[in-house]
Amino acid sequence: MSDKIIVGVDIGGTAVKVGICDLNGELLHTFEGPTEAEKGADAVCNNIANYALQIVEQSPFSWEQVEGVGVGVAGFLDIPNGIIKFSPNLKFRNVPLKEFLENKLQKKVLVNNDANVAALGEAWAGAGSGVSHCVCYTLGTGVGGGIIVSDRIVEGFNGLAGELGHMAIVPDLEAIQCGCGKMGCLETVSSATGIIRMAKDAVARGDRTSLSFITTEITAKDVIDAAKAGDEVATRIVARAAYYLGKSMATVAVVLNPERFIIGGGVSKAGEYLFEQIREVFRKSTPEIVAEGVQIVPAILGNNAGVVGAAGLIIRS
Amino acid sequence: MSDKIIVGVDIGGTAVKVGICDLNGELLHTFEGPTEAEKGADAVCNNIANYALQIVEQSPFSWEQVEGVGVGVAGFLDIPNGIIKFSPNLKFRNVPLKEFLENKLQKKVLVNNDANVAALGEAWAGAGSGVSHCVCYTLGTGVGGGIIVSDRIVEGFNGLAGELGHMAIVPDLEAIQCGCGKMGCLETVSSATGIIRMAKDAVARGDRTSLSFITTEITAKDVIDAAKAGDEVATRIVARAAYYLGKSMATVAVVLNPERFIIGGGVSKAGEYLFEQIREVFRKSTPEIVAEGVQIVPAILGNNAGVVGAAGLIIRS
Repeated sequence: MSDKIIVGVDIGGTAVKVGICDLNGELLHTFEGPTEAEKGADAVCNNIANYALQIVEQSPFSWEQVEGVGVGVAGFLDIPNGIIKFSPNLKFRNVPLKEFLENKLQKKVLVNNDANVAALGEAWAGAGSGVSHCVCYTLGTGVGGGIIVSDRIVEGFNGLAGELGHMAIVPDLEAIQCGCGKMGCLETVSSATGIIRMAKDAVARGDRTSLSFITTEITAKDVIDAAKAGDEVATRIVARAAYYLGKSMATVAVVLNPERFIIGGGVSKAGEYLFEQIREVFRKSTPEIVAEGVQIVPAILGNNAGVVGAAGLIIRS
Repeated sequence: MSDKIIVGVDIGGTAVKVGICDLNGELLHTFEGPTEAEKGADAVCNNIANYALQIVEQSPFSWEQVEGVGVGVAGFLDIPNGIIKFSPNLKFRNVPLKEFLENKLQKKVLVNNDANVAALGEAWAGAGSGVSHCVCYTLGTGVGGGIIVSDRIVEGFNGLAGELGHMAIVPDLEAIQCGCGKMGCLETVSSATGIIRMAKDAVARGDRTSLSFITTEITAKDVIDAAKAGDEVATRIVARAAYYLGKSMATVAVVLNPERFIIGGGVSKAGEYLFEQIREVFRKSTPEIVAEGVQIVPAILGNNAGVVGAAGLIIRS
């Protein structure tokens, strides 16, 4: 095989996932190894380099075919210089990852944050394939995001663009404080955490709901399942999560006029039940001319979005 | 003079403004001629071409020095092809302006909408000079906008990005309908029209305010002047306009992480009195890490932003 390939690296707190993609974003091989964050930054950097070398060695490709190595990592980054300024889950500071890997691997290396990279993965080779302007939401513990304009990640002046979970979208009268310190952020209502909080509040208030019979910790899936089964309280909670997602998309739509919104993360597994509600709010809240042709669709790459998007950095930068 | 120059064209309903810029965005000469929209599309297109030729002929520069011609126009455009699909103030449809001018002038021609072009002018050579990521608001009859990411205009998939006046920012309970048909748009409260409406409502309600002694049509300037003079009702109205501007900027900040917000248009002439209120709301509503280093400043090019930005299309595309 003589075609060019790209290596994508997704650094998690416990595992580093490495993948080989072709230049169209097709994921050909994956490999996972321990991060070993407890051994410190040097060990982690060496692990990453070794996993990248190993996956290529064990594949039908040669190292000469590698066009570059892209890396996604959670934390505050100096993106142009590829420095991890601070990573909460790896617990290290000011690690010049790009420089280290370029010296060790003798290839072009690009580093970006995990939410941006996952968005790029979906945009490039997932649910946004063929679309130049798209916005990705990840509905998990929080609400993450990534913005793709003209096929490129929007980083912003401090690498902080795409923090969709911190759009102050809930009106002051109903707002609660977010982990970021501000009031009424989208993730206070539309994340798994937000859905669980609303459910617990309802149970604590004594609302009549099947959720009060759950004896283990309530999960977002419990609430969504109860809503689908017709539980009125759960239905209202999911509708509220969908409402503010749709409203936030209406806002993003007039600012950026994307062609497609892509929603991933655990909560998105609620499927069409959730998506239909989001689309309805979006249509009601967005000027017709801006809403026209806009699609709101589920992410399709799942946990592979990170490695694919990391690879995408090399040809979409 | 042997340096390269760019011709910028700002097409208005009654006048076409033409300017010569150097490659740094300095406006060296301007010229204005009648649009003559009533004579139809052919006449307008010929006028534009002739004004462009004339301004260069009457300058110390030669036509050979012209790097290209940029054009800003209000309306719905096919930007890549430079076609005016519909222009409400010129009343014409499907005019292939780019093709016409390229044939007639034998130069590269780029066409974009007036709000985007004015934003690019400020970003390139006005209040955003030296800044790669900025967002411009124009507070006039409506609220217009333009987004600059990595030195380029964000157009969106239908050329509709930057419609900041249609962010649905006023909570449902207090929202009124906007001209666009949707509820609670920013321009219902933060445009000159919005400020005048709130003032008239207050007078009609019989609120105690100096505004009720104005015998002519109330203007936004009347309301701002009364607020500065301590009138409580006027103060509340301007504070409300500032509040939703600040809130909308907080939203834009987490989505795009711009370095600078630039505010122009008639209402922005209220000056620091207005700007300080906007900045305070912005700081309160934006996660600290995102707000850090962000500036909210007045536009400085005034009516020249259009021609300068039109010229900017040629080197920032």
